[in-house]
Amino acid sequence: MAESDCFELGNFALESGAILPATRLAYRTWGRLNERRDNAVVVFHSLTGDADVTTWWSGLFGPGKAVDPEQHYVICANLLGSCYGSTGPTSINPATGKPWQANFPDVTVRDNVRAQRQLCAHLGVDRVDMVIGGSLGGMLALQWAAWDPSVRRVVAVATSAAHSAWCIAWSESQRQAIYADPAWEDGFYAPDRPPAAGLAAARMMAMLSYRNSDSFQQRFGREPAAAVAVTPQVQASDQTGPRPSYSVQSYLHHQGRKLVQRFDANSYVCLTHMANSHDLGLEKLSSDPDRFARPSESGKKRSGLEQPVLLVGIPSDILFPLADIEALAAHLTNAEVATLPSPHGHDGFLLDADRLDVLIRDWSERLDAPANPRHHALKTCIST
Amino acid sequence: MAESDCFELGNFALESGAILPATRLAYRTWGRLNERRDNAVVVFHSLTGDADVTTWWSGLFGPGKAVDPEQHYVICANLLGSCYGSTGPTSINPATGKPWQANFPDVTVRDNVRAQRQLCAHLGVDRVDMVIGGSLGGMLALQWAAWDPSVRRVVAVATSAAHSAWCIAWSESQRQAIYADPAWEDGFYAPDRPPAAGLAAARMMAMLSYRNSDSFQQRFGREPAAAVAVTPQVQASDQTGPRPSYSVQSYLHHQGRKLVQRFDANSYVCLTHMANSHDLGLEKLSSDPDRFARPSESGKKRSGLEQPVLLVGIPSDILFPLADIEALAAHLTNAEVATLPSPHGHDGFLLDADRLDVLIRDWSERLDAPANPRHHALKTCIST
Repeated sequence: MAESDCFELGNFALESGAILPATRLAYRTWGRLNERRDNAVVVFHSLTGDADVTTWWSGLFGPGKAVDPEQHYVICANLLGSCYGSTGPTSINPATGKPWQANFPDVTVRDNVRAQRQLCAHLGVDRVDMVIGGSLGGMLALQWAAWDPSVRRVVAVATSAAHSAWCIAWSESQRQAIYADPAWEDGFYAPDRPPAAGLAAARMMAMLSYRNSDSFQQRFGREPAAAVAVTPQVQASDQTGPRPSYSVQSYLHHQGRKLVQRFDANSYVCLTHMANSHDLGLEKLSSDPDRFARPSESGKKRSGLEQPVLLVGIPSDILFPLADIEALAAHLTNAEVATLPSPHGHDGFLLDADRLDVLIRDWSERLDAPANPRHHALKTCIST
Repeated sequence: MAESDCFELGNFALESGAILPATRLAYRTWGRLNERRDNAVVVFHSLTGDADVTTWWSGLFGPGKAVDPEQHYVICANLLGSCYGSTGPTSINPATGKPWQANFPDVTVRDNVRAQRQLCAHLGVDRVDMVIGGSLGGMLALQWAAWDPSVRRVVAVATSAAHSAWCIAWSESQRQAIYADPAWEDGFYAPDRPPAAGLAAARMMAMLSYRNSDSFQQRFGREPAAAVAVTPQVQASDQTGPRPSYSVQSYLHHQGRKLVQRFDANSYVCLTHMANSHDLGLEKLSSDPDRFARPSESGKKRSGLEQPVLLVGIPSDILFPLADIEALAAHLTNAEVATLPSPHGHDGFLLDADRLDVLIRDWSERLDAPANPRHHALKTCIST
């Protein structure tokens, strides 16, 4: 990843009441803030992502694309709790001089949104043109929009109004695999002896949730595993149990090893807990006769999530079913649901970014066009 | 579980070429074999089941039900590789005087079918009236029918023609969670120190595959976990990591603990590998111009799977999608697909056994009625 910039937040008050000292956000920007200071596009990464949008969302980044550095001032920060430069479990706790590890405090989606709003203010942004993210990143986009009525456009892909029991259950069983690894050591492992087997098993499970039956069957079927020369690397501690018989097993092992090489187990635990915290409170809001008067972040009364919102659902996504996304739309006043017909399941938000880009640009152009509601509705029908 | 009977097979030759010594099947029977010796119904249990059909499939067992001990001679055996009385990893290896544990040889679906066919012969059964099973049990039912053209009826619920890449991947990540547990000890753990945390994590993952997003959301939503008094039992080694925040997490922990108390980790590894072996070879068969001349178990040429087959699919099942079941039906000459509209996903084959019973009896009655193909097709349309 290219070098990130760094924004120091100092002592940062968390939603839990704890103070996180020496808080910093690693972030990257592309393009320039315009004179009106209103062309910022804030992009949020998903669970194990980083601040470099150009690597993981290249399909919708570039001239003429939905996120266009020639038009927009693009900002992407690594999440608090992650391990790609922002403060997280691998950071040094100033009080002890040692890494936080499992003592890193609970961080919520709302904490991360507040931190990134401070970053935007620091960068001189007056009004955000678009917040956009997929999966966990989509939760941040929606939470941001709920707190900041000045945001002009919101794009939330394959995400929800509140983390569901289903999603909580997926991440819980992944964390349990990490906890089962002796190297976990209650989260206080030596940096060179991470709980590799547990984190790899967690990633393998996660890969199932990111794909689906069809995509696995078409790619792997019952193809036998290739006979692999057993090298010392393959015998590393994150390779446990018998050698794989089927190629889909080899694929999962490969995915597990890859994550172990690039991600910290405490960060994985921290960020999956963080996703659990996601809840826009829309259900309560919808049943509230005073719904336009709920307190904002600052305590002032305001309306929320009235902005144009594009919700993108992937019909083959088993983690965030289309029905959940349609239910979310029903809570919003100005939302449109578009479907991204990807064969890849949840991961379609990354793997089919080219097609996602078209959906987002189509929607944006209609927002910018002279208003004609009937015409818009017609176009939506044709494009989906 | 009530006391099982025991059938000794002695030295049993496995598909792998290995000989399993002192092989025994624990089994139960209900009802009586009729004079024509043709009223046997063989029921197969699923992954962690046992020989007592009356406990786990009570909804379709009893007078007037699909499996009726007043009409049928009902036979159910515990699978080889399991831990409920049949020979498996917890059995003593006569050569060493110690339990097999991880040295237990690979056992396939076909091995289990051959063993149970020997059991049927031993019990004096001349012709099997029906083979029936769900999930892993359905695989055995289909394999049996492929080898035994004399079987009159076949019912296979929520299962497939061959274990899919998707299903292989689910069980692989579950085994990896077991392997990550230090107590696994490469499968040679002390009986009183099993890999409880790993097996519990595996079960939690499996529970996700047995249910779905809707069923979890409707049952648990974002309900907080009840404050539980921490008893010594709760602090046992199979309870790892932080206390649950959400009730769905508590539910998963409970399911994990329950399996640890009743099932052996080596049996779990053995039987999930066994499911991987399932492949009727139908795809090859369908593209074979000489399809009615493939060799049978005994090496003689025969036709296979020409019997009436009821395939039951559950639309909400994410593990065995309805499309897979319809693809299986397309390979068979005399199959009917019925859908069981359960909200529970894969586990609907157990949880909605009452409705499954109606489907099976409806189909059976039509088989027994004077033949009128058009009439049958009409009834099928109405009932689905």
